[in-house]
Amino acid sequence: MAGEYQKVTGQTAAELAAIVGESYVVFNDADRLEPYSHDEIPDRRWAHMPEALVRPGCAEEIAQIMRLANRLMIPVTPRGAGSGLSGGAVPIHGGIVLLFDRMNKIVDIDRGNLTITVEPGVITNEINEVLRDDGLFYAGYPMSLETCTIGGNVAENAGGGKAVKYGVTGRYVIGLHVVTPTGEMVELGGKRVKDVTGYDLIHLLVGSEGTLGIITQITLRLMPLPRASVDLLVLFTSAEDAVAAMPAIMTGGVIPTAVEFMDRASVHAACEYLNETIPYDQAGAMLLITVDGGSEDHVQRDYEAVGEKCLSAGAIEVYVADNHTTSERVWKVRRNIGEAFNLVSRNQSGEDIVVPPASIAKMVAKLLDLSARYGVMIPCFGHAGDGNLHARIVMNPSWTASRWNETLPKMLKELYSLTAELGGRISGEHGIGHKRKAYMPLVVSENYINMLRSIKRSLDPNNVLNPGKIFDL
Amino acid sequence: MAGEYQKVTGQTAAELAAIVGESYVVFNDADRLEPYSHDEIPDRRWAHMPEALVRPGCAEEIAQIMRLANRLMIPVTPRGAGSGLSGGAVPIHGGIVLLFDRMNKIVDIDRGNLTITVEPGVITNEINEVLRDDGLFYAGYPMSLETCTIGGNVAENAGGGKAVKYGVTGRYVIGLHVVTPTGEMVELGGKRVKDVTGYDLIHLLVGSEGTLGIITQITLRLMPLPRASVDLLVLFTSAEDAVAAMPAIMTGGVIPTAVEFMDRASVHAACEYLNETIPYDQAGAMLLITVDGGSEDHVQRDYEAVGEKCLSAGAIEVYVADNHTTSERVWKVRRNIGEAFNLVSRNQSGEDIVVPPASIAKMVAKLLDLSARYGVMIPCFGHAGDGNLHARIVMNPSWTASRWNETLPKMLKELYSLTAELGGRISGEHGIGHKRKAYMPLVVSENYINMLRSIKRSLDPNNVLNPGKIFDL
Repeated sequence: MAGEYQKVTGQTAAELAAIVGESYVVFNDADRLEPYSHDEIPDRRWAHMPEALVRPGCAEEIAQIMRLANRLMIPVTPRGAGSGLSGGAVPIHGGIVLLFDRMNKIVDIDRGNLTITVEPGVITNEINEVLRDDGLFYAGYPMSLETCTIGGNVAENAGGGKAVKYGVTGRYVIGLHVVTPTGEMVELGGKRVKDVTGYDLIHLLVGSEGTLGIITQITLRLMPLPRASVDLLVLFTSAEDAVAAMPAIMTGGVIPTAVEFMDRASVHAACEYLNETIPYDQAGAMLLITVDGGSEDHVQRDYEAVGEKCLSAGAIEVYVADNHTTSERVWKVRRNIGEAFNLVSRNQSGEDIVVPPASIAKMVAKLLDLSARYGVMIPCFGHAGDGNLHARIVMNPSWTASRWNETLPKMLKELYSLTAELGGRISGEHGIGHKRKAYMPLVVSENYINMLRSIKRSLDPNNVLNPGKIFDL
Repeated sequence: MAGEYQKVTGQTAAELAAIVGESYVVFNDADRLEPYSHDEIPDRRWAHMPEALVRPGCAEEIAQIMRLANRLMIPVTPRGAGSGLSGGAVPIHGGIVLLFDRMNKIVDIDRGNLTITVEPGVITNEINEVLRDDGLFYAGYPMSLETCTIGGNVAENAGGGKAVKYGVTGRYVIGLHVVTPTGEMVELGGKRVKDVTGYDLIHLLVGSEGTLGIITQITLRLMPLPRASVDLLVLFTSAEDAVAAMPAIMTGGVIPTAVEFMDRASVHAACEYLNETIPYDQAGAMLLITVDGGSEDHVQRDYEAVGEKCLSAGAIEVYVADNHTTSERVWKVRRNIGEAFNLVSRNQSGEDIVVPPASIAKMVAKLLDLSARYGVMIPCFGHAGDGNLHARIVMNPSWTASRWNETLPKMLKELYSLTAELGGRISGEHGIGHKRKAYMPLVVSENYINMLRSIKRSLDPNNVLNPGKIFDL
């Protein structure tokens, strides 16, 4: 359907300026538009230039923009902080990129209902900053919380370090204001914690990658801040040993808050990047395990139980980080692995496969085999407790770029097929975007994709909202 | 669109028999069809006779039935245990009722992945029975767990007594097998705890009241059974006092597992029905509060904190039920209130309003005012911790039936408008069905209902799957 789209003309830019104000439209200025042509996928072949950047100030302006887009057949791509890893915010058919940096207010903190209401442009970390003094927290935040925005988190259903115990973004979203693809303003949910008055459109929107509606306000459910929390840094001889310990850890009667996996290459890269030293010399891989709870006694008993499970499952050492400084150092290493690898080379592919948690050891074995057979490095880290592995396929330095470009799709096809055989899928939290859409038929049925297409067409008949993501119509 | 439907003929019945087997089709037998003409709404004016009852044995048979239904334009209404309270399973355009009593197997208990996979006809209580020895539990079950089926729970997104802490059915559904309205078999989700590979159709289906797909298999996420649990029975002088204590209880830093509200009339009715005595003589209302957790010490500290909050917020007495027998007695009273009232009179309307939790005191005040102004009793009970109140509007015995029939819609309109003013909705867990659909515009926007209609049309173009529920096309 791309051929049907119209270009943004000077006349269109003037219409957009009439809606949002002239200073909030960028048009005909490649230098200022370029940063909005890509997200954090290092390989710029996934980039595409927008024709205009528009920074709306409110939902009503966005509704007007969508009505204009439908009238003129111009694609519109909403964009959060641009920290995505699947191209969800890349305007692959050109047109308009919508930026939410002006819609960045904390609308309301409701201590009686334990909710916070925010605009989509709020930096995710800010939410927990403003809640700290109330003893409340928002548990759904992802690893990139210091740079990403909550609107992007909701659009991608971002997962975070605490997801093993607390779930991902979607669990906490109880209200959304949305502008539909055709330019109607709709309120979904609210401050109710239960509601069956109509279909659950909130969770249809959450994770729909900006293809079904534009989020203009978000109400999140909050929890009491846990009174105590401890991190364990657990060293294993090898990646296989570390993941083989997972089932015993996960089914021991204590649900940890986080179970993060890092292989040696990942820890090394992040430590180099941060100029940090954590004790990984003897270790081929490590698990970073958080246990939190209602009291220090309770947490101590739980982390001791988890630590013992680790040791009897083959860990060579368990370090306890029971103060904020040490915890923060270790978590900073974990959080910066992605960033560290992004700087290594653009000839790499960051994968986000997810399998049933008990299959993670089999998945790691398959990755090691794939790495050996193709002769490429695949450093691996991620949310092991959720079965979600971030595998980085890095080009063999002895290869030519064209060999890499030929080989990568074959490897991905093989990787995804192996993942599917284990009951897995190709994205646990980064999304499909346009980067992975060609591979969807490897892991889901044509009937399923047809259901997605039917729903997309029903809400966006002209296919103007973030077209070409997840699937093609 | 009802006028377009065809009747089930002898020829159709023979075709259905060819699909499922002759002994699993009931046709032309009013006595055997009558039980499937209604759910547990006492007022039989909401009933409607099916033309045929079909008891399929597997998803493939259901797919064939749906293809037949589309070819012949015959409506199909799926039905769980028939314990619904909004008419969701009532075949209001006649046609075929699908029963799932033959699809009642536990398919798989996966202790490594902490999941259970079941067919839709499994009685919900059976799930926790088969898990008990593994120290695991399914937390999403509703109050009617001893009679309802898990398929119905998923279709209605049923809420339960533990929803304050653990959420409702939908939180635990991670995999569904579905037959689409057009007769395609689709698998959604699986055993993964995170997944953003495509839209979240699972939660679009959960709570869609059987209008978007027929559920043929369900995978539920499990949790470790809490090691300790205590119930508090907290007495207050009046309903107003009890609900006024709620915000202090809910924001005190401990999230209770359950906070159930029962006014005096509700407790009285259930005690009479059960021939039970619990100490409510001095009380105008009571809260039943559960606290659970990882250890007895921890739970003790938590329930003491909650108990103190109750006393300082005006409770006249806090009884601690720390053994199974006492707990079970008190919960049985709570669970049987609905059943007790169902036997009182058919001239009543069981409501299921839900407001933001902090607004529950205002809602109870409005109910008392409504009761006084109209001169009818409105006994009230429900999931106070969730803001979800079951208000029973009972006919004044001095009224004629026609006065009741004239007055009730006016009262409901007023009740729902008052609910909407507080940010509430007309159903927290019972659903809209056909009983409440006329009132939808009082609480949600036309734009929202139009989104529901668009999605329904896109997946069920002939409107043959449970037509006329939630909204009219």
